[in-house]
Amino acid sequence: MNGYILLWCSKPTRIFIYSNHVAVFEFFILLNSNQISLILGQINFMFDNSTIVAISTPPGIGAIAVIRMSGEDAVNICDTVFSSNSNKTLGLQSANTLHYGKIREGETVIDEVVVGIFKAPHSYTGENVVEISCHGSLYIQKKILEVLVQQGARLAHPGEFTLRAFLNGKLDLSQAEGVADLISSSSKAAHRVAINQMRGGISEEIKGLRGQLLNFISLIELELDFSEEDVEFANRSDLRILVSKIGRLLKILKDSFYLGNAIKNGIPVAIVGKTNSGKSTLLNLLLKEDKAIVSDIAGTTRDFIEDIISIDGIHFRFIDTAGIRHTTDKIEQLGIERTFQKISQAAIVLLLVDLDDEQQTIVQSVKSLKKQIEHSETHLVVIINKIDLYPVNEVDKIIRLLEPMVTNSNRVVTLSAKFGNNLEVLEKTLKELIHADQIEQSDILITNTRHFEALTKSYEAIQRVAAGLESNIPEDLLAQDIREVLHYLGEITGEITNDEILGNIFSKFCIGK
Amino acid sequence: MNGYILLWCSKPTRIFIYSNHVAVFEFFILLNSNQISLILGQINFMFDNSTIVAISTPPGIGAIAVIRMSGEDAVNICDTVFSSNSNKTLGLQSANTLHYGKIREGETVIDEVVVGIFKAPHSYTGENVVEISCHGSLYIQKKILEVLVQQGARLAHPGEFTLRAFLNGKLDLSQAEGVADLISSSSKAAHRVAINQMRGGISEEIKGLRGQLLNFISLIELELDFSEEDVEFANRSDLRILVSKIGRLLKILKDSFYLGNAIKNGIPVAIVGKTNSGKSTLLNLLLKEDKAIVSDIAGTTRDFIEDIISIDGIHFRFIDTAGIRHTTDKIEQLGIERTFQKISQAAIVLLLVDLDDEQQTIVQSVKSLKKQIEHSETHLVVIINKIDLYPVNEVDKIIRLLEPMVTNSNRVVTLSAKFGNNLEVLEKTLKELIHADQIEQSDILITNTRHFEALTKSYEAIQRVAAGLESNIPEDLLAQDIREVLHYLGEITGEITNDEILGNIFSKFCIGK
Repeated sequence: MNGYILLWCSKPTRIFIYSNHVAVFEFFILLNSNQISLILGQINFMFDNSTIVAISTPPGIGAIAVIRMSGEDAVNICDTVFSSNSNKTLGLQSANTLHYGKIREGETVIDEVVVGIFKAPHSYTGENVVEISCHGSLYIQKKILEVLVQQGARLAHPGEFTLRAFLNGKLDLSQAEGVADLISSSSKAAHRVAINQMRGGISEEIKGLRGQLLNFISLIELELDFSEEDVEFANRSDLRILVSKIGRLLKILKDSFYLGNAIKNGIPVAIVGKTNSGKSTLLNLLLKEDKAIVSDIAGTTRDFIEDIISIDGIHFRFIDTAGIRHTTDKIEQLGIERTFQKISQAAIVLLLVDLDDEQQTIVQSVKSLKKQIEHSETHLVVIINKIDLYPVNEVDKIIRLLEPMVTNSNRVVTLSAKFGNNLEVLEKTLKELIHADQIEQSDILITNTRHFEALTKSYEAIQRVAAGLESNIPEDLLAQDIREVLHYLGEITGEITNDEILGNIFSKFCIGK
Repeated sequence: MNGYILLWCSKPTRIFIYSNHVAVFEFFILLNSNQISLILGQINFMFDNSTIVAISTPPGIGAIAVIRMSGEDAVNICDTVFSSNSNKTLGLQSANTLHYGKIREGETVIDEVVVGIFKAPHSYTGENVVEISCHGSLYIQKKILEVLVQQGARLAHPGEFTLRAFLNGKLDLSQAEGVADLISSSSKAAHRVAINQMRGGISEEIKGLRGQLLNFISLIELELDFSEEDVEFANRSDLRILVSKIGRLLKILKDSFYLGNAIKNGIPVAIVGKTNSGKSTLLNLLLKEDKAIVSDIAGTTRDFIEDIISIDGIHFRFIDTAGIRHTTDKIEQLGIERTFQKISQAAIVLLLVDLDDEQQTIVQSVKSLKKQIEHSETHLVVIINKIDLYPVNEVDKIIRLLEPMVTNSNRVVTLSAKFGNNLEVLEKTLKELIHADQIEQSDILITNTRHFEALTKSYEAIQRVAAGLESNIPEDLLAQDIREVLHYLGEITGEITNDEILGNIFSKFCIGK
């Protein structure tokens, strides 16, 4: 679709041109208030309404594969290659029904299939959708795609089905992103966050607050129109309450990104300690506990879980600190400086200390590490390892020595990595440090960098609004800040978006979704 | 199911105990005709009627995955974890319908899914079947399996869905094997053979002939019962006609295995020639032509097609003759002896000769290779390579020299592997040698070793029947041979089978089929 748009405006403003609820064209007009301007723009939509087709099941050979086709002609295109014993016409069948038959290329039967029919708007994309369930051979999958393309369908781009669902108002943008996260989620916690997002968790709250704010800005803009009469349509005290409410929510959401992102990608954990302190033994112990759980599903490759353990559904990802192993044996060094960078990436550092070492050395190494992380949000767990080799009172002595260092984010745990004693204490500690209970309770966590950035920007803007309200700044400046909040909040749900943002988001989807 | 069986019989016989049409227990009783025997046997069925569940789509992450559940309780089990906005009960829905809703574990939503319902006997397995189409994350796939198992389903064994389809009479055994071949088929020709088999191509003919033969044997056995009266219920001349017809068909089917098996696994081709004769160049040339066709489907890994080319839908598989490259440069050797074993495995040997070589050397190497393959069904193509480097009359001289060797199965082709000249002639030659036109025309090719063995045994038995008819052997011996034919033919379609055969066949299936 191409078109020319004629605009007329009399004050500085930002303009969006919408198709459905997507701003496909965006520009600013900054004019003196008395000027009249004529703007001519050409719009090229990234969207077309052709019928698209793709293999939606994982790539490879399986018992069955599903080929999905969406668009106005989806059912008709399928009809041209489908035949059943009773000579059914798919176009005449009810929505949400299944039909057994053959897919043909001319006289040649490609496969015996089951075709599912969904009709607009009651489908994933909101369009007519056909799902062909065929035998999962690569040849058949490819061949069926081929004949459907011959009959007029077009191969779908990555994420194009979900893009259409978004364009047709079946999902908002944050929900669409939730779909992609859901597909790649591999832990219980990541799954929980993604499915909440897909089901509209974050969107609803943001849309609600944005709606209320929109109300205020229209009143404030009314004030601007009557600016010479000094009226106040928007109740400032109500606005203050709303702004502070929005501010609080934005802060909570924005701050949840640290945890949310860690959950999505696995909580980064570094194990440090001198050579032979038991790092590998500890890692193996943690991994061994988990292997049985993670590897009992076909297709989970070992690569995938190599360095990830899952404790009660939360993934902990072990950062490669292999470098440490090659340090010299100089005790007081503990190889820590060489892994400084790794440590700064970790949410949790496990420091393995050895009862063989001098008390002074142990205290020194703990202090040194605490100093390194004091300005970060990294937690420290000092692990007194090899307790199986020492009498209880000696272990107790070290514990008492380190006790003053214990805080909310720094802990001391005794352990035998070799025999697994106290492993459950370490796991409990890890869960406590990342507030696993909060993850269970909290419905909404921000996991998406794009959302985090938009939230940060809208939080900054809402703070300016709050300050502006305090200092009674002019309405037009206040309106400007509020519009900025509205803009960034709208970006999260996709009420405001553009080609580039959509292109970025959906190109990361897999084909067939 | 366990049970005790009491048998009473008065003549030597082979006895099968059937469940549906599967002989689950088989034994011979050889007695003197006046003896009475009592046989006690215990039967353990490999089959149960629990509800089974598996992921049916290829392993891994994709836009969607399908979880299939089959058994009497399939719909009810799904109902316990499924909820929709309109509080649908799946058990009350019509067959062949699709239902959108959520799969839950208690209060937790695992995924939003579409459930397809099939009802016995109108399903793949002949039982109640539910297909759950969920988001293709590993976590979700695993989790849904888990909750279904918690609700009473059992994880399916490889091929168990198809085994049930067979046990419930939806497919015969040869058709079931066709399903497995279809899934693994990666070329047009292999696909064509497999889908014909799945659709009952071979079964129907065999069942038809077996039915007619069964007719005769009952008449002959009637004669045995009246053996003292010297009657002839079975018309010997009709029987002769049938036996000869069966013999001809069995020979055609049996002989088609050589080609059918090659098509299924790719026609084995060996390229031989001295170092620098252009073997790699030729292989690359052949592969390059094909790459574009094979690699345009997502999920086709390069590994898979590394040494396979497809000419008009027929796969040619290049046998690794890497050994040749390390031979010394002694021309007359041509490295052939070192690859003798490889050559004997090939259906076609491509011998690359070099115009640089002495005429005598060339003739000698061709003669030597011909000698090696003279007792096999291996074809030889002598390729005069590097024709771009030599004047036409010199090339012609060599062609005339080799012309006397050209036969139906030995050819001479001139080529420039470097520039691709005459590539189409080589491809045409390859197709001619394996009778590609016959593949196009013939509907039925044997591709399965089990079928080949059964066909060979029944062919031997039918030849004994034919000879017996000529020499008028006693009815009981004739009947014995006919029963053997019936037995082996029945094995192909599964009219006669046992646990071990079924176990062997279905264990090779993928999970979820």
